[in-house]
Amino acid sequence: DSGALKQVARILNGGLSPSDIAHLLESSPPRQRSLLWNLVDKQLEGEVLQYLNEDIRGDFLSKFSAQELADLIEDFESDDLADLLQQLPDTVIQEVLNTMDEQDRQRVEEVLSYPEDTAGGLMNTDTITVRPDISIDVVLRYLRRHRTLPPMTDSLIVVSRRDEFIGMLPVTSLLVSNPAATVREVMDTDIEPIPVTLSDTKVAILFERYDLISAPVVAENGKLLGRITIDDVVDVIREDADHSLMRMAGLDDDEDTFAPVWKTSRRRAVWLGINLMTAFIASGVIGLFEETITKVVALAVLMPIVASMGGIAGSQTLTLVIRGMAVGQISSANVGWLLNREFLVSAMNGVLWALVVAGAATLWFKDIMLGAIIAAALVINLVAAALVGTVLPLFLRSRNIDPALAGGVILTTVTDVVGFVSFLGLATLFYA
Amino acid sequence: DSGALKQVARILNGGLSPSDIAHLLESSPPRQRSLLWNLVDKQLEGEVLQYLNEDIRGDFLSKFSAQELADLIEDFESDDLADLLQQLPDTVIQEVLNTMDEQDRQRVEEVLSYPEDTAGGLMNTDTITVRPDISIDVVLRYLRRHRTLPPMTDSLIVVSRRDEFIGMLPVTSLLVSNPAATVREVMDTDIEPIPVTLSDTKVAILFERYDLISAPVVAENGKLLGRITIDDVVDVIREDADHSLMRMAGLDDDEDTFAPVWKTSRRRAVWLGINLMTAFIASGVIGLFEETITKVVALAVLMPIVASMGGIAGSQTLTLVIRGMAVGQISSANVGWLLNREFLVSAMNGVLWALVVAGAATLWFKDIMLGAIIAAALVINLVAAALVGTVLPLFLRSRNIDPALAGGVILTTVTDVVGFVSFLGLATLFYA
Repeated sequence: DSGALKQVARILNGGLSPSDIAHLLESSPPRQRSLLWNLVDKQLEGEVLQYLNEDIRGDFLSKFSAQELADLIEDFESDDLADLLQQLPDTVIQEVLNTMDEQDRQRVEEVLSYPEDTAGGLMNTDTITVRPDISIDVVLRYLRRHRTLPPMTDSLIVVSRRDEFIGMLPVTSLLVSNPAATVREVMDTDIEPIPVTLSDTKVAILFERYDLISAPVVAENGKLLGRITIDDVVDVIREDADHSLMRMAGLDDDEDTFAPVWKTSRRRAVWLGINLMTAFIASGVIGLFEETITKVVALAVLMPIVASMGGIAGSQTLTLVIRGMAVGQISSANVGWLLNREFLVSAMNGVLWALVVAGAATLWFKDIMLGAIIAAALVINLVAAALVGTVLPLFLRSRNIDPALAGGVILTTVTDVVGFVSFLGLATLFYA
Repeated sequence: DSGALKQVARILNGGLSPSDIAHLLESSPPRQRSLLWNLVDKQLEGEVLQYLNEDIRGDFLSKFSAQELADLIEDFESDDLADLLQQLPDTVIQEVLNTMDEQDRQRVEEVLSYPEDTAGGLMNTDTITVRPDISIDVVLRYLRRHRTLPPMTDSLIVVSRRDEFIGMLPVTSLLVSNPAATVREVMDTDIEPIPVTLSDTKVAILFERYDLISAPVVAENGKLLGRITIDDVVDVIREDADHSLMRMAGLDDDEDTFAPVWKTSRRRAVWLGINLMTAFIASGVIGLFEETITKVVALAVLMPIVASMGGIAGSQTLTLVIRGMAVGQISSANVGWLLNREFLVSAMNGVLWALVVAGAATLWFKDIMLGAIIAAALVINLVAAALVGTVLPLFLRSRNIDPALAGGVILTTVTDVVGFVSFLGLATLFYA
């Protein structure tokens, strides 16, 4: 058995890249995962951790001592360092800092001064900069003194004597330009540098829109601080896109697919508890009409239709608006048009399906009054769902509440309440 | 007014990039959109179309004549060409091909031979290739004969005399290597070329995992066909991630946020119709227990709790599994563990919330029997939800049905039916 383990260790450390190892760990249930993790070579651990999802990384990190952590992160690039440290408790960070020499400590403290979800938290400080007045030939000779260039170096950054950003010098331009030309003559100046405080989501939109591979990051005074590369932006894009999907189901963006039973149970319990409260609100509303239901039991049979159709229609609008907000399409300039469109669409679909439901209900229970009541309730609920689905996410965002997380719960509460009140309320009026 | 329009046209064509114009069009309601589109300069139209979402692009394309289309796509890169043509009806493609000269036609026909969602559909044919036996100095002199290099050229591709892929020569290595060294000595050979038939989702996973900027695409016989660049892969990542979110709400991935009323109504009507059928199934189940409800009207008040808690718990599992499948974490090797974990989690949460609901129901209706029945039904429904939520998406995928689109509808039908049958069925047993 220990022979088999040795063989696994050989394949793991010899044949797989750190990102492959990370993927394998993420795809393994807890016991296999910790078995595999123990087989990973010490010198690969740091790189594997960089590729691991935060949830799992946190588990592994909690088992390191401060000294081990300090050794581990020595060779990290600044953005990966920021990622990792921001996951640790403050007391551990302080211990790690204490084991470091002055220079390393300063570097780490600077990195930690930028919030993780901003350009500052995404950037690397390993830039190659050149002055605008030197010749391309000098740049080429300067580069040749390096043994390698930092990964993703598609451009050098042109800065002034005081380190202010001036322009970008693409590596491909270096290769095709006249060596006697100056950097100033060849460089691109139509590139807007990224402010260090810009949110990572907005950084991602800039990279997508302008097909960037790397981009310079500047302080408010125009000084160059570092650069952001596409590989880190791809992670942001993936996370942002996953965010809405996972949050709408009440899951964490970084949810570990193979989290152990106990951890999963606690997280899910909270979400079920919140939704149980909304279910009790709906029950409370139905309870108000007990007497009517006793008289006409068909109401109990049909009432879920009104509520669920409202929920379905509202979710469609809600999802569309949440996605539109995420990609920056929806603003106060066009939300009026959207609200109007959603109103018209829900009214039209409401009438269409109300006729179908009314026909079916009338035939089923031989009661034309029941058909008319459910038709009216359905139209009311679909229109309410459309309006709430449009306005609610915008309102939540203006209050800094995540629309993907809270939107669905609130929406379903509204469509349940409106659905039951309109259907049972109308029935009470007409059958009382 | 025409003065104002001229000013808008000037800003549009002078100050904004094609991707900015595309974003502006995507963020505009229909009337403003067609107004803006008419102001876009003829020579910018092609580029703007490349950045537009498919839904909107289709609308604009349908207004072009075959000759206009042929002129428009003359300068397109091959991957963008494939994207655009694959949206047109076959008869229009034939007309466009007829207006082209022999060389252009061959190029277009080759591009169209690869499905859009494969490496072949993503690749560009504008590669710069070099032979392994020449020196770096010769490569540098060869490059200097170009006025510019293709965008995203981070590496040259090393090929044999018969155009077979051998390795990659990073541009940054060119800059730091000894000019007298040969390409063979400097090139990277540990890069796996991408087979032309690989799905775009898998291409995206490779780019993410190995932090690639560009990658070579080869035919089955090893011949180089083209290369894929990160800018197109980013679009795939965004689309794949959006896909699950949008499909779970029954929306199209490429849904136009500002689609007109009529188009939106027709699309939504279909989804509401499908969900109406499942709602009727649930009502049919309730209808079986009409007699019991007449005796104990509290059942009508409480039954939505059982059904909705099942739906919520099931959606969590379903979303987790759909995401796990999308990132390639879930396979037959670990699905057994996952099923077991979901069973345990749902049983634990089922018991926890069943006790809460039982307490509340007993207090509310002063009926301890009712509390016991709803508790049992809740546990049954949560466990059923977890099992269906885990197995269903895997089953659907094995049948080539999109789990994100069909999963939610089927799951809710199951949780409604199981919820109502277990709650009302148990009640019928004990109150009959």
